[in-house]
Amino acid sequence: QSSVTIYGVIDQTVSRVSGGSSSLYMPPAIEAKHDMWVLKAGDPSRLGFRGVEDLGGGWSAGFQLEHRLMPDTGTTDSPGGSTFWQGRSLVWLRSDRFGEVFAGRDNFAAFFNGVQADPFLFDYGVAALGPDFTLARYTVAGEGGSRVSNQAGWRSPRLGGVALTLSMAAGEGSSTGRRRNEGLNLNYQQGPLYLGLGWDRGATLAGEDRSLINVTASYVLGSVKLFGNIARSRNEAATTPAGQRIRAYNAGLTVAAGGGLVKLAIGRLAPQGGASDSTKLGLGYEYPLSKRTAIRAALATGKTEGQSRTNGCEAGLRVTF
Amino acid sequence: QSSVTIYGVIDQTVSRVSGGSSSLYMPPAIEAKHDMWVLKAGDPSRLGFRGVEDLGGGWSAGFQLEHRLMPDTGTTDSPGGSTFWQGRSLVWLRSDRFGEVFAGRDNFAAFFNGVQADPFLFDYGVAALGPDFTLARYTVAGEGGSRVSNQAGWRSPRLGGVALTLSMAAGEGSSTGRRRNEGLNLNYQQGPLYLGLGWDRGATLAGEDRSLINVTASYVLGSVKLFGNIARSRNEAATTPAGQRIRAYNAGLTVAAGGGLVKLAIGRLAPQGGASDSTKLGLGYEYPLSKRTAIRAALATGKTEGQSRTNGCEAGLRVTF
Amino acid sequence: QSSVTIYGVIDQTVSRVSGGSSSLYMPPAIEAKHDMWVLKAGDPSRLGFRGVEDLGGGWSAGFQLEHRLMPDTGTTDSPGGSTFWQGRSLVWLRSDRFGEVFAGRDNFAAFFNGVQADPFLFDYGVAALGPDFTLARYTVAGEGGSRVSNQAGWRSPRLGGVALTLSMAAGEGSSTGRRRNEGLNLNYQQGPLYLGLGWDRGATLAGEDRSLINVTASYVLGSVKLFGNIARSRNEAATTPAGQRIRAYNAGLTVAAGGGLVKLAIGRLAPQGGASDSTKLGLGYEYPLSKRTAIRAALATGKTEGQSRTNGCEAGLRVTF
Repeated sequence: QSSVTIYGVIDQTVSRVSGGSSSLYMPPAIEAKHDMWVLKAGDPSRLGFRGVEDLGGGWSAGFQLEHRLMPDTGTTDSPGGSTFWQGRSLVWLRSDRFGEVFAGRDNFAAFFNGVQADPFLFDYGVAALGPDFTLARYTVAGEGGSRVSNQAGWRSPRLGGVALTLSMAAGEGSSTGRRRNEGLNLNYQQGPLYLGLGWDRGATLAGEDRSLINVTASYVLGSVKLFGNIARSRNEAATTPAGQRIRAYNAGLTVAAGGGLVKLAIGRLAPQGGASDSTKLGLGYEYPLSKRTAIRAALATGKTEGQSRTNGCEAGLRVTF
Repeated sequence: QSSVTIYGVIDQTVSRVSGGSSSLYMPPAIEAKHDMWVLKAGDPSRLGFRGVEDLGGGWSAGFQLEHRLMPDTGTTDSPGGSTFWQGRSLVWLRSDRFGEVFAGRDNFAAFFNGVQADPFLFDYGVAALGPDFTLARYTVAGEGGSRVSNQAGWRSPRLGGVALTLSMAAGEGSSTGRRRNEGLNLNYQQGPLYLGLGWDRGATLAGEDRSLINVTASYVLGSVKLFGNIARSRNEAATTPAGQRIRAYNAGLTVAAGGGLVKLAIGRLAPQGGASDSTKLGLGYEYPLSKRTAIRAALATGKTEGQSRTNGCEAGLRVTF
Repeated sequence: QSSVTIYGVIDQTVSRVSGGSSSLYMPPAIEAKHDMWVLKAGDPSRLGFRGVEDLGGGWSAGFQLEHRLMPDTGTTDSPGGSTFWQGRSLVWLRSDRFGEVFAGRDNFAAFFNGVQADPFLFDYGVAALGPDFTLARYTVAGEGGSRVSNQAGWRSPRLGGVALTLSMAAGEGSSTGRRRNEGLNLNYQQGPLYLGLGWDRGATLAGEDRSLINVTASYVLGSVKLFGNIARSRNEAATTPAGQRIRAYNAGLTVAAGGGLVKLAIGRLAPQGGASDSTKLGLGYEYPLSKRTAIRAALATGKTEGQSRTNGCEAGLRVTF
């Protein structure tokens, strides 16, 4: 008999983003549709398979395969639709004492600080800060998103609240021309406090050289949780005279209210060297119908200097299994 | 622990269609192969995941993801092979009193009357009436099949035997150039009688405008079940001077015999405005080896006026799980 | 309730193959990367669904769907990535007395003798003999691998240790231009001895005509298992003046040692008619951490006459579920 757990999320959200020229910095496939009603995955919908085997003596081994999908069209949610296991495909060996060695495809280590900094947890809705704000628009060189293929790494055990993840991905001279990618996540989690420092760096054979530093903090104060994040990305593209640098500043909070959760987020993107600043404000409410099912609604507004303001609204249903 | 149910159908059928120029109106990928023995999915083979959560107070929430596949080649069964969850990807919220709100990708509402009108339940065999006959060759504008992406709708509770489904799909200005799609299914089901009325309408940015009306009845008389259906489709293509209209007339019956089920179907397609009429006659027998496993065989003949007759035969094995 | 079993293998292996011009005859996507560290599937990673239903009276029916994947990149492991159920998609009806009728997509019958002849069981590692050696580089005409679509066949019951598989696949005039494929596997398995004879033949509309004969033996001697295999393939390509013939000679052994398994394999490819011979030597060790989890390491060296030697090494982790 098999020891597999099947899990997933399916979310369908009705959404409308006004026709302004500013961006709300949602995932590209969703952002593209301004000025019309759309049905979309408000949360990144997924179907996953995972398993853990206890090897005894404090050791365990496990795997995880996570498919991402667009339930409004029945298609795979990945760039070009070609990566079926877009979410994650990993295998690991873990020890209580020595930590975990993992290998496969996953988000880069600093990404997880970004998620911790977003009251909307990187959902696909209008109000989320998402990777654009919390990671200062950093994407993995040669991959174009937040996932790194061919990754191997080590996660320390949590000692005195501190945990460290180190990872490296071979370039493999693949068709994307990716070079080696390296990442780090050092964080402290104790009681109500989370503090995280993340770093990532990657390059391409074509001369691109990208890096990211982010610092994230969150604090739980009774029914309120506060979020803050600063990130700086750098993209030394060989084809432009100077590399582009972006700084991002984000803050947010959640408040338990009326049986649900009010979410508020504000983000600012400040590209260095002439490009215009962008600001986004998101407000949402999520109400659980059960442990697994929730309804959500959100409003957002975004403005890039020199461009017209864009507003968005949405309401959706999410089923978790 | 997860609450997912895995289900599916795998069917493999050996089939031969003679080399006549008339069509048997099977799915295009299967119809293409005249005058040779083939192995094919005799029933649309599938693998699905679904779950329902009881929310209390007569409310529930659920989801369904259904992959379609061609077991003879191991590939995805969708136009171009690109829609993995071709069968269905849905989420819903249901109340015993207020009915069900659903969102995602599914067949249009009137489609389900077509299935009710086919003794072969839209299998992929030579003898089925299928969507070509029961839906008068109607396909969703801008989608090219019977599924509608970006669909949201409402199903009423069944009251006094009557149930109503209303649905609408945003056009989303997608690459297919689809405009809004609207559909309806009003049916009565009580004791041995089923009566259904369906309607669907869709358009494309390029000026196509399609619509469908169908009326379906079935009646159970002891070991016999009778089927009848009339449908009318209209396709106002901007590129032709006049829109094309097709009328379809179908009748069928099933008879429980010898532990299995005899199936007989006859369909007639009458395009308006000069094009030739087509007639199809299908005869089949399905014998259950268990609740989940069945063997099937069928014969069919089809004739379009002015073209040579085409005959088909097949025998297959179907496993349901 | 569903009767499906989910199973799978996820393997991630760190590997390096030196820059020699000789081939180690690994799967093409993996072989391509000489002279660099890579992360790869060391075992063909998979996720499968299968079920068997007891029909009573010694009869049963079943199905199997097997997806193959590359966990280092999250993509489908099939030529072009387009065959999701690359591993197998089958349905069958089985009788204790009359054997099994099966239909769908699967490896050709003689393939299974090849696997029996490889101490590394066709893993994707540097040291495996794989299909290149044990099947004398035979690939299915018009398919380009070891799988045959549109296959129907019969497996006899095992009588006095002897079992026979016969299969045939319709050509279906498909876009690959494949013609009919026929295969056979006759084997004897009793106590420590396995003897197998395999044959396969296929052709394309373009005039290709390929065939394979292989003879395999293995014998268990206490903690040692010995393997031997001879194969001859023929490829009459219409575009070359003479057909190409390849003979292959393979031997191997496994020894239970230190709680794990030492594996040794040697293979020789002898193309007829001028092309150079190739030799490969592989050595590996596999250590089970549990019934389902193992760590593996291997070394290999390969040399084609007139070309520079290529060496490889690797270490990996495999989780089975």
